[in-house]
Amino acid sequence: MHIHPTRIAILGASGYTGAELLRLLLCHPAADIRVLTAERQAGKPMAEIFPHLAPFDLPATIKIAEVTWDDVDFVFCALPHGTTQEVIAGLPERLRVVDLSADFRLFDPATYAEWYGQAHRAVELQKEAVYGLTEHARPAVRVARLVANPGCYPTAAMLPLIPLLKAGQIDPGSLIIDAKSGVSGAGRDAKQANLFCEISEGMSAYGVGRHRHMPEMEQELALAAGGPVSLSFTPHLIPMNRGELITTYVRLVNGATVDDLRQTLVSAYQSEPFLKVVPAGVAPATRHVRGSNHLHMGVFPDHRPGHAIVISVLDNLVKGASGQAVQNMNVMLGLPETMGLEQVALFP
Amino acid sequence: MHIHPTRIAILGASGYTGAELLRLLLCHPAADIRVLTAERQAGKPMAEIFPHLAPFDLPATIKIAEVTWDDVDFVFCALPHGTTQEVIAGLPERLRVVDLSADFRLFDPATYAEWYGQAHRAVELQKEAVYGLTEHARPAVRVARLVANPGCYPTAAMLPLIPLLKAGQIDPGSLIIDAKSGVSGAGRDAKQANLFCEISEGMSAYGVGRHRHMPEMEQELALAAGGPVSLSFTPHLIPMNRGELITTYVRLVNGATVDDLRQTLVSAYQSEPFLKVVPAGVAPATRHVRGSNHLHMGVFPDHRPGHAIVISVLDNLVKGASGQAVQNMNVMLGLPETMGLEQVALFP
Amino acid sequence: MHIHPTRIAILGASGYTGAELLRLLLCHPAADIRVLTAERQAGKPMAEIFPHLAPFDLPATIKIAEVTWDDVDFVFCALPHGTTQEVIAGLPERLRVVDLSADFRLFDPATYAEWYGQAHRAVELQKEAVYGLTEHARPAVRVARLVANPGCYPTAAMLPLIPLLKAGQIDPGSLIIDAKSGVSGAGRDAKQANLFCEISEGMSAYGVGRHRHMPEMEQELALAAGGPVSLSFTPHLIPMNRGELITTYVRLVNGATVDDLRQTLVSAYQSEPFLKVVPAGVAPATRHVRGSNHLHMGVFPDHRPGHAIVISVLDNLVKGASGQAVQNMNVMLGLPETMGLEQVALFP
Amino acid sequence: MHIHPTRIAILGASGYTGAELLRLLLCHPAADIRVLTAERQAGKPMAEIFPHLAPFDLPATIKIAEVTWDDVDFVFCALPHGTTQEVIAGLPERLRVVDLSADFRLFDPATYAEWYGQAHRAVELQKEAVYGLTEHARPAVRVARLVANPGCYPTAAMLPLIPLLKAGQIDPGSLIIDAKSGVSGAGRDAKQANLFCEISEGMSAYGVGRHRHMPEMEQELALAAGGPVSLSFTPHLIPMNRGELITTYVRLVNGATVDDLRQTLVSAYQSEPFLKVVPAGVAPATRHVRGSNHLHMGVFPDHRPGHAIVISVLDNLVKGASGQAVQNMNVMLGLPETMGLEQVALFP
Repeated sequence: MHIHPTRIAILGASGYTGAELLRLLLCHPAADIRVLTAERQAGKPMAEIFPHLAPFDLPATIKIAEVTWDDVDFVFCALPHGTTQEVIAGLPERLRVVDLSADFRLFDPATYAEWYGQAHRAVELQKEAVYGLTEHARPAVRVARLVANPGCYPTAAMLPLIPLLKAGQIDPGSLIIDAKSGVSGAGRDAKQANLFCEISEGMSAYGVGRHRHMPEMEQELALAAGGPVSLSFTPHLIPMNRGELITTYVRLVNGATVDDLRQTLVSAYQSEPFLKVVPAGVAPATRHVRGSNHLHMGVFPDHRPGHAIVISVLDNLVKGASGQAVQNMNVMLGLPETMGLEQVALFP
Repeated sequence: MHIHPTRIAILGASGYTGAELLRLLLCHPAADIRVLTAERQAGKPMAEIFPHLAPFDLPATIKIAEVTWDDVDFVFCALPHGTTQEVIAGLPERLRVVDLSADFRLFDPATYAEWYGQAHRAVELQKEAVYGLTEHARPAVRVARLVANPGCYPTAAMLPLIPLLKAGQIDPGSLIIDAKSGVSGAGRDAKQANLFCEISEGMSAYGVGRHRHMPEMEQELALAAGGPVSLSFTPHLIPMNRGELITTYVRLVNGATVDDLRQTLVSAYQSEPFLKVVPAGVAPATRHVRGSNHLHMGVFPDHRPGHAIVISVLDNLVKGASGQAVQNMNVMLGLPETMGLEQVALFP
Repeated sequence: MHIHPTRIAILGASGYTGAELLRLLLCHPAADIRVLTAERQAGKPMAEIFPHLAPFDLPATIKIAEVTWDDVDFVFCALPHGTTQEVIAGLPERLRVVDLSADFRLFDPATYAEWYGQAHRAVELQKEAVYGLTEHARPAVRVARLVANPGCYPTAAMLPLIPLLKAGQIDPGSLIIDAKSGVSGAGRDAKQANLFCEISEGMSAYGVGRHRHMPEMEQELALAAGGPVSLSFTPHLIPMNRGELITTYVRLVNGATVDDLRQTLVSAYQSEPFLKVVPAGVAPATRHVRGSNHLHMGVFPDHRPGHAIVISVLDNLVKGASGQAVQNMNVMLGLPETMGLEQVALFP
Repeated sequence: MHIHPTRIAILGASGYTGAELLRLLLCHPAADIRVLTAERQAGKPMAEIFPHLAPFDLPATIKIAEVTWDDVDFVFCALPHGTTQEVIAGLPERLRVVDLSADFRLFDPATYAEWYGQAHRAVELQKEAVYGLTEHARPAVRVARLVANPGCYPTAAMLPLIPLLKAGQIDPGSLIIDAKSGVSGAGRDAKQANLFCEISEGMSAYGVGRHRHMPEMEQELALAAGGPVSLSFTPHLIPMNRGELITTYVRLVNGATVDDLRQTLVSAYQSEPFLKVVPAGVAPATRHVRGSNHLHMGVFPDHRPGHAIVISVLDNLVKGASGQAVQNMNVMLGLPETMGLEQVALFP
């Protein structure tokens, strides 16, 4: 197959998701990395910002204001939440964009304003954006100009829940999502709370009852359930770099059994290259998806009759962020969806 | 105060809970460590089994069969589950015992048989044993000959739940206990699954829906609730040595609010030296109790109306095992309950 | 380029280097994985032995005695030291082999016997084997039937030292090699010393003055120096999965300066795809080569006049084992040397 | 023994060494903690700055300018290097001080200026200060008004080297000190380089050839050797919280053997409560001194004839900082030297 290279800009290349995009795109046969931006460190070679990228020939970072957009076909936007709206609104219309921030994930401006404390500054674009949970959004992603890449927790939690809700096998009024994540999701900013000595050999919950990934899940799960859902979501910070594990406690309805749930997931995802339902009795483990775009999921009997436990794992920087972003790009460009994403997990 | 020394034997001194008993008892003003047993490594000096104990003058390990019981007043039994029953049944009656295994925690022989796959071999003793969740069992512990030291998960989960159930503020029919533990709870036996490379940088659930700490919690929580409870319990293995965090999802009843729950815990435990209710909005963290006998607990609003989230943390080897064992010994011997347990947490 | 697939057998596929060969070969365009052996776990699917490989279609493990050699062109031997000799001696002569064990690394049978405590059992093969430090052995590797893949420490230590010794810039009589390694080099066997709780949050030296990688380095460095070398080698175990860092203290001779040394390395390796000399003042870090086949090296002034410090890092499972093995296979088969080894390091 | 309480101020209580002083002093029978300062966080309760100290009744932090010195007998100064000189110079003369910074460790103002880039601002005090490597400085410490507490690396490296140099058994002209440290030594300031994700699963050297602990070691080792020493010192950062391991490569002189060196250390330190010489063949490990004031040391044969390897380990926050500071306070106050320092190491 002759592959026409796509000229790519990564806005916000100095963070962990930016670096992860580079890790994946450097081995992607259709990616031609042309532009890297980093506002505060503009001018620095990537080899200084990320020495693990030193062996590769990459453009030096510039500021967004300095980009010559004529050289670019496709944009990954890995900027902080809130700063992204205006940047994307200012891009030439012909550019297609995958945005890894939360800025375009909520369709309802009122919900956005409620959770982010300010009005959205690119409401028209917000309407147009496609929520890119790839396996459930391919037709819309294919033709989208702007794809809002899902958050890591929503990706991990919803991929198993959506088919179960669609099948009417679990109660949308009782979804308890206990999430555990490695630290890379917290970003690369220097914060005391994320120092090695503050994280290592310890764990704690954070953002209990008010994490911003919650409305995103309510929005998308309601679509799957065909009506409102009620959920509880509690994330915990775990002393490891990468990996996210979601334990969801669900109530079975319509006579469904644990085996029915597993069968639903197997049927829904048997052709999916990145989604794997583990056999009964096997516990999915984050170490088995480290560095890969795979998500593993399993269903377990709950000790309480009429309930089940759903467990899913992914690498928050890959399927939970940059890997899914590349997967979305592949769909948008009509490329094979697995292109550049064939990596085997790095274990140990 | 003149302190009369108590002559102590630790049966099973080559495991992590044995070592932790030694760490605590070596600084305990009333403890005179006389006997250490280790069946497979008998004869080895402790300095070889645990080099961190090398600076201290300790008896060499012997086999249980070799112990001269006349030299002993008090026994800590840190043997594997299942092997303990017969050992304790064979001890001179005058000896008082804290057993750290699960062997005497279940009062109902049928429940024991169901979960452990065999009949109990010391049924009379089982009847006599006192379940030693110290803060809720002092009168019985004080006069007990045999105290069954609670498991680490039950200790962490039940200390906040018992006052809430007693107060009738949470629904005993809906307790979802999501537990996360460091690895030391898995013991010191050489198992591939517990190798550094199999644990580090990864997490997974285990024993989903069938962990043996479940019946112990059902038994004790039912006593607090005054009737049967229904619970779900899912433990997860986290890449750290020590520390356990329990996230419990509860349904509020009788008009109780999150603040009511917090107030109930504050009232119940305000005089307890080892139990601390954190202020509203603060997330308890295992790193703040590492190496100490403290348990921190907090109550949070759930995003679902009418529900709350209870979070508790402890060090599984201290308050979750050897620390509580020493606390029970102090109660049994009429010593100040905090004696030998004043250590400040080791942070970082 | 049309690539003719090579049919590959991996003997000893249940260890970490076996798994790492699979990680690399599954993305190698010329590799057709036909045979996987695992003596003790024969019959088990790889998805059970290594769940991170579950998404891939791999042959079930068999015993070596069950292999049909007609289906195989190329063999990677990842068996334990000592058991390898007879296995390789028994292979059909037409098969080409990369052996990852230490069995064929020492050319002198007497040295082998001295360090391994027994006579070599395949002396003829030992004579024929090529020591496969790829960058310094290409002509011989290209035509070899049996390549002895270097140890991880020797690879990391010698790649910077060889050009410096050849250039006569450092004293072969004074090489002090202080090595630090992650734990995966210790293998997957269940040993108490390698449990998470015995490794995490601690470090220690091991095999001080008598590690078996020492004679291998003496042999190869003497070839580079054109005469005997005197070296000290002390490995330390570090609480991390992957990564090796070597700090070598050298004495400058013939008027050489630190800059001269750096220039020698730059000249020697400027065309090497996997070897990178970091700029002056930059400290090589193992995290920048995690999961990649790269080795980074740097030279620093020593506070003692007339001395220098050489630091090199690699991933012990990649360039230190399976990556270099694939690199050797590529050379043996006339393939591009980087084929299947283009991965970017996984950071964080 | 009736113990007269000493009223203590800790200047700089919001850093890791400040917290560690509190951990130790809270269990010290003669310590009455009266004053805690923290310039930037003044007014915050310690329970917020360090939640692991929440169970204890501690004074709120104030600024140094707000301290009422009449309430204080003894000062621990845990301020950053450079800011300490003027603070201590401004204290009432009757106060006795242990300074944990580097400000008073170098006796020669020229050396200070060379390594710290500016003139010392309290030269008179610098002359008076006693270098508090306790085991070798007791008579001077006992009567000192100002003790300069040694750095963590110098403590770990010099305790084994001083007796060997005094005995004339090792060459002072050839000391190669390869040091490895956990991360807590880098302090609690928010720096990107010390984030969990930048440290975990990786290691690197830092400050190669120019670490500021070097002149301190040159000064003190020269005193022991009776003449100038030549040393190389290279520290490495290891992914763990606490612990330091020093591997020193020495040349034997005057016919000394490895056994002679070990015997010298045993003789020098057999009565020392905190210093332990491990048996021949045993490798000292940092995990065996975690949280304790002990230092373990061992001597090993080097593969090079006429050389030896000395390995020592300590907890950088205890014997390497706050533990030794308390030890010095005990000596200064005429208290038993081990008071408040009897903790057993926390393992695992």
